[in-house]
Amino acid sequence: MTDDRDGSTTADRPAALTPPAGAPPLITHGSEQWALQKLYDAAGRPPLRVEVRSGIAVGPPAADAAATLHVHTRRALFKLLAFPDYYLGACYTSGEVHVEGSLVDGLEELYRALARAQPPGPLQRQLAQWVYKPQRNSPAESRHNVHRHYNLGNDFYRLWLDDQLVYTCAYFRTPGSSLEQAQIDKLELICRKLRLRPGERVVETGSGWGALALHMARHYGVTVHAYNIAHEQVRFARERAQALGLQNQVTFFEDDYRKIDGRYDVFVSIGMLEHVGLEHFADFGAVIDRSLAPSGRGLLHFIGRTHPMPLNPWIERHIFPGGYPPALSELAPILEPANFAVLDVENLRLHYAKTLEHWLARFDANEDQVRAMFDARFVRAWRFYLSGSLAAFRAGEMHLYQLLFNRNGVNDVPWTRDALHL
Amino acid sequence: MTDDRDGSTTADRPAALTPPAGAPPLITHGSEQWALQKLYDAAGRPPLRVEVRSGIAVGPPAADAAATLHVHTRRALFKLLAFPDYYLGACYTSGEVHVEGSLVDGLEELYRALARAQPPGPLQRQLAQWVYKPQRNSPAESRHNVHRHYNLGNDFYRLWLDDQLVYTCAYFRTPGSSLEQAQIDKLELICRKLRLRPGERVVETGSGWGALALHMARHYGVTVHAYNIAHEQVRFARERAQALGLQNQVTFFEDDYRKIDGRYDVFVSIGMLEHVGLEHFADFGAVIDRSLAPSGRGLLHFIGRTHPMPLNPWIERHIFPGGYPPALSELAPILEPANFAVLDVENLRLHYAKTLEHWLARFDANEDQVRAMFDARFVRAWRFYLSGSLAAFRAGEMHLYQLLFNRNGVNDVPWTRDALHL
Repeated sequence: MTDDRDGSTTADRPAALTPPAGAPPLITHGSEQWALQKLYDAAGRPPLRVEVRSGIAVGPPAADAAATLHVHTRRALFKLLAFPDYYLGACYTSGEVHVEGSLVDGLEELYRALARAQPPGPLQRQLAQWVYKPQRNSPAESRHNVHRHYNLGNDFYRLWLDDQLVYTCAYFRTPGSSLEQAQIDKLELICRKLRLRPGERVVETGSGWGALALHMARHYGVTVHAYNIAHEQVRFARERAQALGLQNQVTFFEDDYRKIDGRYDVFVSIGMLEHVGLEHFADFGAVIDRSLAPSGRGLLHFIGRTHPMPLNPWIERHIFPGGYPPALSELAPILEPANFAVLDVENLRLHYAKTLEHWLARFDANEDQVRAMFDARFVRAWRFYLSGSLAAFRAGEMHLYQLLFNRNGVNDVPWTRDALHL
Repeated sequence: MTDDRDGSTTADRPAALTPPAGAPPLITHGSEQWALQKLYDAAGRPPLRVEVRSGIAVGPPAADAAATLHVHTRRALFKLLAFPDYYLGACYTSGEVHVEGSLVDGLEELYRALARAQPPGPLQRQLAQWVYKPQRNSPAESRHNVHRHYNLGNDFYRLWLDDQLVYTCAYFRTPGSSLEQAQIDKLELICRKLRLRPGERVVETGSGWGALALHMARHYGVTVHAYNIAHEQVRFARERAQALGLQNQVTFFEDDYRKIDGRYDVFVSIGMLEHVGLEHFADFGAVIDRSLAPSGRGLLHFIGRTHPMPLNPWIERHIFPGGYPPALSELAPILEPANFAVLDVENLRLHYAKTLEHWLARFDANEDQVRAMFDARFVRAWRFYLSGSLAAFRAGEMHLYQLLFNRNGVNDVPWTRDALHL
């Protein structure tokens, strides 16, 4: 490891991009100075230093900066200027951009500055839409999109998730809780919000490695139908159900949420709405409506925004194809046609930041194993994704909403929130 | 009092409408049978009996019905058929419709049936929009609209509100709490959600008779600027501030929310958003944005819906001119342009039903005094309004949302909800 605090080793960077010691600046065009300043201004002048290989720089001195971005090639500088939302991730992954100091702190400051900056004009937005088309989410496309992320191998996820492989925001009763305990407490919080009763039928969609379904069955005596289109996860979840003797209580279907069949007392979806895509929100609402019993209730736990905006295009292309974290108002097509009543919304934004701190620390500690499984480029991409997500939750770029609802007019609801206390 | 369970006395009904004992049915046209059936079907066939003076009826026998509606005139029947949303309240007020049995239960069943029924077709909606225009809410119109409801005289409101005159949903720690205690607990719940700290500056808009502003100043050591355009309320609130020695800490401005000036740590509005009107939501959001300090936070407590729909036109015309309870998604123009982050939403629907039970019981107990202050028609109108509101909250036609927000990216927020417990 170098002393660079982003944790990347020197070996991670393509050798051709490392300037020979003592070499004079290779490129000194005035256009670079112009491009750098333009990039910096468009980003809202964050307290970051940005240096181009030629030696020119913007921002505060390195000692006062949250981090220093080194842009190693002229090509990277102009790519960043043209489409920064995409090329920051892309150039970090390729090694054309390197961060000295804390990548997380640097990205947090960048997000905060961007939030204060002038939003891109209509021409820029039009251009971005023209060069960049997000993935769509038909059943076949969804399967492909989900496969690309969640079927990377359970051994990989075991390196940095908790022991139950819960890949969603945890609930830390105190900031010092362990990740393992915080994931159990999250499952418990959801069960309490849903007021599960023995013998009830639950349908879960986007069931991951099965932790919630198994927790519900084990501790609340319900039967669960769990839907998931990620093959590796379903295989693992079925094995765990067998091992726990819960195979008669919990059925894992390797199928799309659109195939959910039957009537249930409870509908629950943790960390899947982000993969549904806005254009399918009405379908998703219709699935809930036809699956819920008259006295039914449901909970959606999802990453969202304060206002509608597209997912970062680099994340969308390389990490979560087809992903879209919605603003709360964008849930109208899910909730309103069926007349669902919102009972409770909790924003766990800082709990997701804390969760990501744990994941990133474990990922960094297991960097060598990840590199051996994939390659250095993969390590850089995932470090950027995890660090960027942590920064986004800290800066308010992302939020985590738990939204509890029931069919409207059902009066069998808890009188207060007292029962939710863990 | 008669034995009619809606509590109206025989004297309330215009004498001309009371059929002479033993008289034969006056009107027996087949068109009445047709109209009655059509009306009943459009209402979703509720478990109510509806009888026309002529003797014809629809619905279950009186013994099995939640209530029996007596329609005393042919004219009333056809008005109800043409525009039931408006004329049910209007004909109840005029005495042309009379309810035997529980008015509240009857209206609750009606709301539930309507929610299951086919919604009105586009032609009917167009017609309704054509014959019926809600009040608007410019500053001058708002003053007029608010005057009509809130300046009816503090003595009137004293007859059926709690001793502090809190005219918004209370928070009942248990269903058996007293109204007085539940109103104090509501004020307390709001203060805790807002995490008031001594010396902070609070702006309140729609401050009613001042109970919240005074509670905050007295128990949390904050200074409050409270805005309200209802003269009678402001006068009362100023007197109370004097009596409590809080006149230096709490200033009551008789002015519109659009006139709020200065920067505050906290923005709070309890039961006023319903009077703002959708077309002014963006203005309202801009007022919050310019009034809130960078670390500011706010709470909106308001009656809302599960999906966008107009306020009942009779209520809008005769009780709350210009009123519009929004769906949660309709808050987007308030919250999204300023990038406010929703931290917490709590739905207190059944607490409002409980609050209304208390108000209605006190109103009924003081019926004679109300009639002496106004007249029998006023008593009927207000009984219909209070009973209809109670029924609406029970049936899920209305909800009460408390929505807590802050400026996005501010991380000084409570780690969990634990501190909210009373």
